[in-house]
Amino acid sequence: MSFDPKRLAHPKVLSLHPYQPGKPIAECQREFGLSEVIKLASNENPLGTSRHVTHHLQKQFNELARYPDGNGFDLKQALSRHLNISSSHFILGNGSEDVLRMLIQTFVWGGQHIMISEYAFVAYKILAQGLGIDCREIPAKQFSVDFDTMLHAVTNETRMVIIANPNNPTGTYVNEEALQSFLEKLPSEILVVCDEAYYEYIVEKDYPQTLSLMARFPNLIVTRTFSKAYGLAGLRVGYGIAGEGIVELVNRIRKPFNVNHLGQVAATLALGDQLFVQDSIALNETGKKQLYKGFDKLGLRYIPSFANFVMVEINLPEKDIYQELLKCGVIIRPLAPYHLAHYYRITIGTEQENAKCLAALEKVLLKENVV
Amino acid sequence: MSFDPKRLAHPKVLSLHPYQPGKPIAECQREFGLSEVIKLASNENPLGTSRHVTHHLQKQFNELARYPDGNGFDLKQALSRHLNISSSHFILGNGSEDVLRMLIQTFVWGGQHIMISEYAFVAYKILAQGLGIDCREIPAKQFSVDFDTMLHAVTNETRMVIIANPNNPTGTYVNEEALQSFLEKLPSEILVVCDEAYYEYIVEKDYPQTLSLMARFPNLIVTRTFSKAYGLAGLRVGYGIAGEGIVELVNRIRKPFNVNHLGQVAATLALGDQLFVQDSIALNETGKKQLYKGFDKLGLRYIPSFANFVMVEINLPEKDIYQELLKCGVIIRPLAPYHLAHYYRITIGTEQENAKCLAALEKVLLKENVV
Repeated sequence: MSFDPKRLAHPKVLSLHPYQPGKPIAECQREFGLSEVIKLASNENPLGTSRHVTHHLQKQFNELARYPDGNGFDLKQALSRHLNISSSHFILGNGSEDVLRMLIQTFVWGGQHIMISEYAFVAYKILAQGLGIDCREIPAKQFSVDFDTMLHAVTNETRMVIIANPNNPTGTYVNEEALQSFLEKLPSEILVVCDEAYYEYIVEKDYPQTLSLMARFPNLIVTRTFSKAYGLAGLRVGYGIAGEGIVELVNRIRKPFNVNHLGQVAATLALGDQLFVQDSIALNETGKKQLYKGFDKLGLRYIPSFANFVMVEINLPEKDIYQELLKCGVIIRPLAPYHLAHYYRITIGTEQENAKCLAALEKVLLKENVV
Repeated sequence: MSFDPKRLAHPKVLSLHPYQPGKPIAECQREFGLSEVIKLASNENPLGTSRHVTHHLQKQFNELARYPDGNGFDLKQALSRHLNISSSHFILGNGSEDVLRMLIQTFVWGGQHIMISEYAFVAYKILAQGLGIDCREIPAKQFSVDFDTMLHAVTNETRMVIIANPNNPTGTYVNEEALQSFLEKLPSEILVVCDEAYYEYIVEKDYPQTLSLMARFPNLIVTRTFSKAYGLAGLRVGYGIAGEGIVELVNRIRKPFNVNHLGQVAATLALGDQLFVQDSIALNETGKKQLYKGFDKLGLRYIPSFANFVMVEINLPEKDIYQELLKCGVIIRPLAPYHLAHYYRITIGTEQENAKCLAALEKVLLKENVV
């Protein structure tokens, strides 16, 4: 009998469709013979990385043969100062997805499941499935979380609810009142994880103050990242904030060297340059208005966004918009994996990148006599 | 009822003792008020990192805001050229532990278990337990793997055997004949993972040619790392080599950005400086002889090592050797977590570091009137 690893793998892994990252620029250049390509497909920071970070980073090169600090002492101290929370409340991860995986791995087991909203960031489902854990998806209401339906769907086997806030790819958010009311009604044995990867970009007054809510709701956990506003996606640093009991349990399964040394140093430095973050947010606000105006001009519907990307509807079933834009040297993200067939997620770039993207869209739509 | 996360965690996680990394130099300096401290506790490369690597690394700083290449194209190409194996046989990991975790997560489930030898690297047990998987430990024979006993212990629920070769912390290795005979007798549905983290250091002619054996034994998997001879522990890059079917399944649960960008670039560059690796191996051989000679002089028994560390017996039950050496500014690794109460693992350092370590040992032993 021939050796077939498929017979050995976990059944949940067999039915798993891996996450498709945005197409890299170099790949698009190779494929279409283009020299100038812009990527608005992965919600990266168009300003790059703070010079304060890169300037100091090379001083660390004589430390690379050493293992990273397994306790992340300096970075946790810096986070503690920045957020005014004791350093014992932080879990460091190789990106915030690493923190989310560790949370599921620690707390969800046996026949238990996690719960998410329809259109929630697809990574949650993949993470759970990869661990052999079921993921229940609750229908959304106007592209956002429907907390009432979610509460009705809760069973004794529901162990964790993950809420992306703001949500990727819809750009919608849930406000403090809605979240608080949900937490009040939910049994406290069910952990609620708010993935706030984009929280630096949202300025709405009614955005939940999750760090304050944690005092009242010890089952509330928050994850954040250095991959977006802090411009460090390439170095993989995310973190979780939770009660000390939760942190202690997660640290039992955490690999001590899960966050690389340069990532720890860069994130620590990045916290020290809040001006860069402010510039990034300002650029994002201007760019958002630029995209909205362009979409309006092209007659395209979009969902108002509270993050660094916009979800836009381009209903041309006979045309592969994504491929047409690639040919123009513009990489965006088609949302078919979310069963949002005619929707696309466009990262807010620099003024020039946004203009190039809008011009390419106009060209493609003109060809179709849509505009 | 108060919120107690311990009631929620997986029972296997509750009984888990996390891995204790070597004490960082800065911590020892703080604790004992010492300025000069050497660390021979984590099997790191005493030569640091290749200048070829660090020289080119800073050119990557304008790429840090971008996510890493999820497919690791360049690094896999470089590994493919270096080992003369198609790039479809590689799994990249955030250190080789990440690869090991993914292998267990993909293939071991339900009531199945993994099997290791007594004194095997403790991380395997922790990884399995963190995933809710049992780890069966088979008694060792003269500090090395006892394959016969292992074969007798195999059940229908044994899904994976992990063999560290050379093994950390004993420094012992299994030879080609023993491994091949084991593979011949073992059912092919049981995956055999050879963790070859230290394989660059071993020069014995009868060390297994695992990459050749893989053609005959499709259940054989090899893991290696850039953390040791390549001097990149701080950047977290390891890899697995396996049949394409295995690689494809593991990639389904792999997070696309598990290896950071600078790690990928540095590992690719490091493969291009084999002279650095040769220098590291030469220094290791010289240092090993230096330590052996010193141990002989001090009347200390040691296990001949085939890696970049030596396990030495210091039987002074009334004395905390580890603490005494810390006071002298020398960090080594006590092996109590392996139930090797009077054994210590000393990383082979530079000539100066080895001399300082031996002098400190002599001082401590003299105080005890042992020498």
